[in-house]
Amino acid sequence: MTKPTDLQQRLTGLLSPTAVITGGSDLEPYAVDWRKLFPGRPACVVRPSSTEQVAQIVRICHDAGAAIVPQGGNTGLAGGAVPDASGTQVVLSLNRMAAIRRVDPVGLTIEAEAGCILKVAQDAAGAAGRLLPISLAAEGSATIGGVVATNAGGVNVLRYGMTRSLVLGLEVLPDGTVANGLRKLRKDNAGYDWKQLFIGSEGTLGIVTAAVLRLLPRPKHSMTALLSVADPAAALRLLELAQDELGDQISAFELISATSMQLVARHAGLKAPIAEGEWFVLIEAASSLAGLREAAESMLGSAFEQEIALDGVIAESGVQAAQLWALREHVTESEARESKSVKHDVSVPLTAVPQFLIEAGQALAAGAPGTRVNAFGHLGDGNIHYNVLVDAGQDADVVNHIVHDVVAAFGGSISAEHGIGQYRVGELARYRAATEMDLARTLKRALDPDNRLNCLDARPPWHER
Amino acid sequence: MTKPTDLQQRLTGLLSPTAVITGGSDLEPYAVDWRKLFPGRPACVVRPSSTEQVAQIVRICHDAGAAIVPQGGNTGLAGGAVPDASGTQVVLSLNRMAAIRRVDPVGLTIEAEAGCILKVAQDAAGAAGRLLPISLAAEGSATIGGVVATNAGGVNVLRYGMTRSLVLGLEVLPDGTVANGLRKLRKDNAGYDWKQLFIGSEGTLGIVTAAVLRLLPRPKHSMTALLSVADPAAALRLLELAQDELGDQISAFELISATSMQLVARHAGLKAPIAEGEWFVLIEAASSLAGLREAAESMLGSAFEQEIALDGVIAESGVQAAQLWALREHVTESEARESKSVKHDVSVPLTAVPQFLIEAGQALAAGAPGTRVNAFGHLGDGNIHYNVLVDAGQDADVVNHIVHDVVAAFGGSISAEHGIGQYRVGELARYRAATEMDLARTLKRALDPDNRLNCLDARPPWHER
Repeated sequence: MTKPTDLQQRLTGLLSPTAVITGGSDLEPYAVDWRKLFPGRPACVVRPSSTEQVAQIVRICHDAGAAIVPQGGNTGLAGGAVPDASGTQVVLSLNRMAAIRRVDPVGLTIEAEAGCILKVAQDAAGAAGRLLPISLAAEGSATIGGVVATNAGGVNVLRYGMTRSLVLGLEVLPDGTVANGLRKLRKDNAGYDWKQLFIGSEGTLGIVTAAVLRLLPRPKHSMTALLSVADPAAALRLLELAQDELGDQISAFELISATSMQLVARHAGLKAPIAEGEWFVLIEAASSLAGLREAAESMLGSAFEQEIALDGVIAESGVQAAQLWALREHVTESEARESKSVKHDVSVPLTAVPQFLIEAGQALAAGAPGTRVNAFGHLGDGNIHYNVLVDAGQDADVVNHIVHDVVAAFGGSISAEHGIGQYRVGELARYRAATEMDLARTLKRALDPDNRLNCLDARPPWHER
Repeated sequence: MTKPTDLQQRLTGLLSPTAVITGGSDLEPYAVDWRKLFPGRPACVVRPSSTEQVAQIVRICHDAGAAIVPQGGNTGLAGGAVPDASGTQVVLSLNRMAAIRRVDPVGLTIEAEAGCILKVAQDAAGAAGRLLPISLAAEGSATIGGVVATNAGGVNVLRYGMTRSLVLGLEVLPDGTVANGLRKLRKDNAGYDWKQLFIGSEGTLGIVTAAVLRLLPRPKHSMTALLSVADPAAALRLLELAQDELGDQISAFELISATSMQLVARHAGLKAPIAEGEWFVLIEAASSLAGLREAAESMLGSAFEQEIALDGVIAESGVQAAQLWALREHVTESEARESKSVKHDVSVPLTAVPQFLIEAGQALAAGAPGTRVNAFGHLGDGNIHYNVLVDAGQDADVVNHIVHDVVAAFGGSISAEHGIGQYRVGELARYRAATEMDLARTLKRALDPDNRLNCLDARPPWHER
């Protein structure tokens, strides 16, 4: 066993011995992301149990000149919560700070510590008859702190917005001091809304220790429908129709390509209960008002009448609704069983989605022949998971640049919901305008002048050119 | 006529002569707020017609060491858009940059320049069959830039959030360079969301020149109801009931005190069409789904059955709905005719509103005897306009401190929607925690190191202690 470093000794002195992990197999889950794409080597892992302990850890690390990588459920898709391979970074896991402090069903708020699992918070809201609408694949492991730090998206963004729109209050540590903004206010224009800067900054500006999130009334009725259409342009017309009939009660409007459906049929054995089409749309709506079913039937009728939809079905039960959702939910897993892929999480203006899909496909056919596209995602948000199935020999950077060049041409984003992390640092520097990168650097320097927060050597674009 | 200064000459050289106002009666509307509470004296007023001109003005003013006060419709209630009395500050009016660049009814976006009047933008959205839900008393004069710079609230916040939640893209000038973030994306997690920092910063960090706002489907049905209740606690129970029945289709839930209603009866000649109560609640809901009326009747029935409401009426027509809204809309004007008043725009956690009203009333009775309270506002948001009717001899600061001390005790905000401006600078420094003020100063220094943007000498708390 190697001799503990001064830093390890100081941290162990502050926390209980079990709250500091310096080596062995216990370290592994904190050192690498769950997909094992970004293997890191931390100086140690610390697991504080209170905000005050977090503050002390930050001060100790600052004194020692050690960088800190905050970590929640480690479910991120961009490698933003794991350390680099230098062996000098301290992983600060929030997973022991998991308390739900208060659920207020009348004031419609929930206050939870950073390490609280999203699903636990959802269930606590549900037990109080309310809805915490952040919903994503990793909700059984993702934490409130991580969800806030990455401004997580998910399937309900169309209706309820990204995580940002649900954060009322935040407690963060940009340095050794605690900025307690744990207010439960729906309106607060007293001074700069500094918490906004920390939301989505992926732990590079501060450490989220607790949050107050907004809850919503839980809808009484829900409706799930699956339709097939000829092309994405028809899917967009269907969205317009759905908005006319269902208004803002639509909570999800998901696009699934025929390729995605074929992968799901091949690897998960699931098949859409409607006639084949080139594209499929999964719609979910929910409301406290009656009339949802009637509006959905009217939408379907118009879609057939106007020849927008080829076929379609409205779920007759919760079981049927779950079966329709299972088609969508098995796309990623089925893709993994089919082939290696280069994934993209892009967004373009809603109305540009059809043309983006055409031009990206053409660009790939020309620049990376032999690749296949598996496109699906949140059409209602203009967010497409544009995954490219490739052979082992394919250079991923080439594919990234081809796809992202088309995204940029449409004024889109190279990361709609997954964030930058380690994965997209280079791409961010490539596509974001210099003035915006300068602004980001100015803010980073102001809040983390010594570059101690979640800044890998591999991430110079965040800080210095 | 006095000799133009070098600064005036340089600005006149850049712009057309009519775009620079250096004196005379034309200057007056830009020099003082519309309530004439904050009389200022500008070095001059400049009225650029393009973003590039704004950039050049900023550079000229920076060179000359002159501070800039950005101004939109000058409808603010906190004196945040008018210069101080030094005669050295340049008022930069955006009112010539008023174009609506694009309305996209399918992508649900509107792009407008900063000087575009809010009502004009609302109407453009309406003409495309869509809804821009920002709605406030000054909408006929307020501008998009001002609405964004102050994170404006209004009557629809309960359902659609503050202005922040509707801003998709922003173009700002923190210095002589343009940060163009005019993206039309509903999801964008690529790098820091720097625009959030400028929203609500009242022109102290940058100048908003254009914005992309999110539109919504326009609801087909609406419902307006007025109910009387015994006390604010009953009003809160009514809110819970309304949320159960109407879900998130409630767009306004307004509280009006009997005092407010008496003022409206006395000075505007309007009377509530229901039996007297100590408090009144005005509810509006809207939906694309049928079933709104039935849900509202069910709510009313339960409210009577559970003895929450004393009396109530649902509007039978648009005319009746407008009559009910007129009661609410005449409160401020009626108050002005009754007496001098000290106004507060406060918020507390929703569930604390009843106790806040009790304790604030007690504190005023003890500390400022003879004053009367006119309380009304957006109960659904926890935002009360808590206005105190006073004699001419009453010290306003004493009243401010009494009310804000109670607000602070409940973890509330001294400015829910009106902002800080010149009016609340002292109160902000008094009530906001030192760590949060330090953070604000750090951000201000980072983006405006020479303190040139909308910083009065009277505002040291923003910048330096």
